[in-house]
Amino acid sequence: MKCRVCRGEAFVKLPAHNAAFCPEHFDAFFLRQIARAIKKYRMLPPGGRVVVALSGGKDSLVTALVLHRLGYQVEGLFVDLGILEGDFSPASRQACEEFCAVHGVPLRVYSLTAEFGRGIPDIARRYPRICALCGVTKRHVMNEYTLAVGADALATGHTLDDMAAALFANLLRWDLHYLAKGLPVLPAEEGFAKKIKPLALQAENEIRAFAALHEIRPVEAVCPYAPEAKFKRYKSVLNELEEKSPGLKRAFYEGYTQQAHRFKEETARPPLVTCAVCGLPATNSPCTFCRIWRDAT
Amino acid sequence: MKCRVCRGEAFVKLPAHNAAFCPEHFDAFFLRQIARAIKKYRMLPPGGRVVVALSGGKDSLVTALVLHRLGYQVEGLFVDLGILEGDFSPASRQACEEFCAVHGVPLRVYSLTAEFGRGIPDIARRYPRICALCGVTKRHVMNEYTLAVGADALATGHTLDDMAAALFANLLRWDLHYLAKGLPVLPAEEGFAKKIKPLALQAENEIRAFAALHEIRPVEAVCPYAPEAKFKRYKSVLNELEEKSPGLKRAFYEGYTQQAHRFKEETARPPLVTCAVCGLPATNSPCTFCRIWRDAT
Repeated sequence: MKCRVCRGEAFVKLPAHNAAFCPEHFDAFFLRQIARAIKKYRMLPPGGRVVVALSGGKDSLVTALVLHRLGYQVEGLFVDLGILEGDFSPASRQACEEFCAVHGVPLRVYSLTAEFGRGIPDIARRYPRICALCGVTKRHVMNEYTLAVGADALATGHTLDDMAAALFANLLRWDLHYLAKGLPVLPAEEGFAKKIKPLALQAENEIRAFAALHEIRPVEAVCPYAPEAKFKRYKSVLNELEEKSPGLKRAFYEGYTQQAHRFKEETARPPLVTCAVCGLPATNSPCTFCRIWRDAT
Repeated sequence: MKCRVCRGEAFVKLPAHNAAFCPEHFDAFFLRQIARAIKKYRMLPPGGRVVVALSGGKDSLVTALVLHRLGYQVEGLFVDLGILEGDFSPASRQACEEFCAVHGVPLRVYSLTAEFGRGIPDIARRYPRICALCGVTKRHVMNEYTLAVGADALATGHTLDDMAAALFANLLRWDLHYLAKGLPVLPAEEGFAKKIKPLALQAENEIRAFAALHEIRPVEAVCPYAPEAKFKRYKSVLNELEEKSPGLKRAFYEGYTQQAHRFKEETARPPLVTCAVCGLPATNSPCTFCRIWRDAT
């Protein structure tokens, strides 16, 4: 297998792109792909400021590295959930710290335990749907922080596999609300930072290769909550189909981004109010975040 | 396992409906389901006339039997493709003849060989995409026949599995043309008979149970052309998911029928002309059917 560009020994084969690359030209290819997606979906202005939500996993670290190398002003944000079981939060935090030190990316650590005197495990005892609440928590912190520092956008490490699996799940149940919002960009609105997903067109195998190439060392610990079996099933089904029809996942998701306007909801979404505690828009006041973490009532 | 209605011994278990039934109550349930779909999608007027496209397979025979029992005036139409390999066409024809004799359904046999002096195998030598041409051929004959006898609609035996797999395939590539047309009913238009799919919400396992219950003996021979591997893959993927989430296929397809209007194409379809040979609307004159079978040029 030869590199498409220089005919040197290939380091990665990408059937979805009908191509193989040596390390150097894969690096250039991968960056170019993401630069193109950023431009196509108008994610960031040239040299813009972006907060990258870092979890310690390879996807978010690759997102940060790519944006950094493409010349954006990157700041990492790690939300320390205080999950000590399996060393999950400490190990994740360390992976982010090491990555940011190596690549010269500033890192802000937001610790739930430091801010509120308790973490996710303390909350998990009271709430059965802890993964949903953890999601609410992280989104709130990341949004609030991005607004506070005035960055152009908040970037998350969602991959093509994530986006395609979510799209598939939402189509299976025709969930119009999520079908309207599955794009790689959610524009800024009053009280909501712009959200971008620079890896939305990049498949896991490409991201894994890029992480290996740059010796990114993601956290190996796995969250003790959240198996998300259903979501994994959708991913594996799409990978089964991708195996037989390389490029299928990307065509599916990219095709959707051209058609997402068809799912614009006619029904009004619940009106937003301003949370009396944090001042951000929410469906209720106090918002869920302030009720959980700030004991607001 | 007990019958949901009478608590007698169950003969079939339907996880998608969270129910099990004895033979008698399954029969009633199955008929009621289809009567409801016919009403919901306005397929036929009470007691209306319907041509059922019979292939000799269980799906089309079940379609005919159900419509017959629901009080519609059913006429079977078998298109004899002249495929002698594996005894395919003769055995299929025999299955239709036996079924129609047992159930008192009139049957019209349209033989390509009798009409045109050749069948699909003769054409297959000249055309590589024989399955597509066979589809064109059958659709033309069935449409022309339904218009000629003035029936209210042409019914085909497409099942929930067929409809859901096609929907999945069309969503994977965002094929707007087919996404706009995947409904259980296509209304009549000038030169086009109304097309209905009474089994569009019935899963294969239900249809198999109904066929067994009524001792329907479908043809066992398989067409020597047409493996349709891709389509089978989509079916098996959906069945995998259905296994874990009973009712998923139906929710997926039924949900789509509520949303299909979103895929209405903005782009004009190619204008139709009248075929100078058969007089029916087509994209070209002579139409593909008349070019192939009537040697029209």
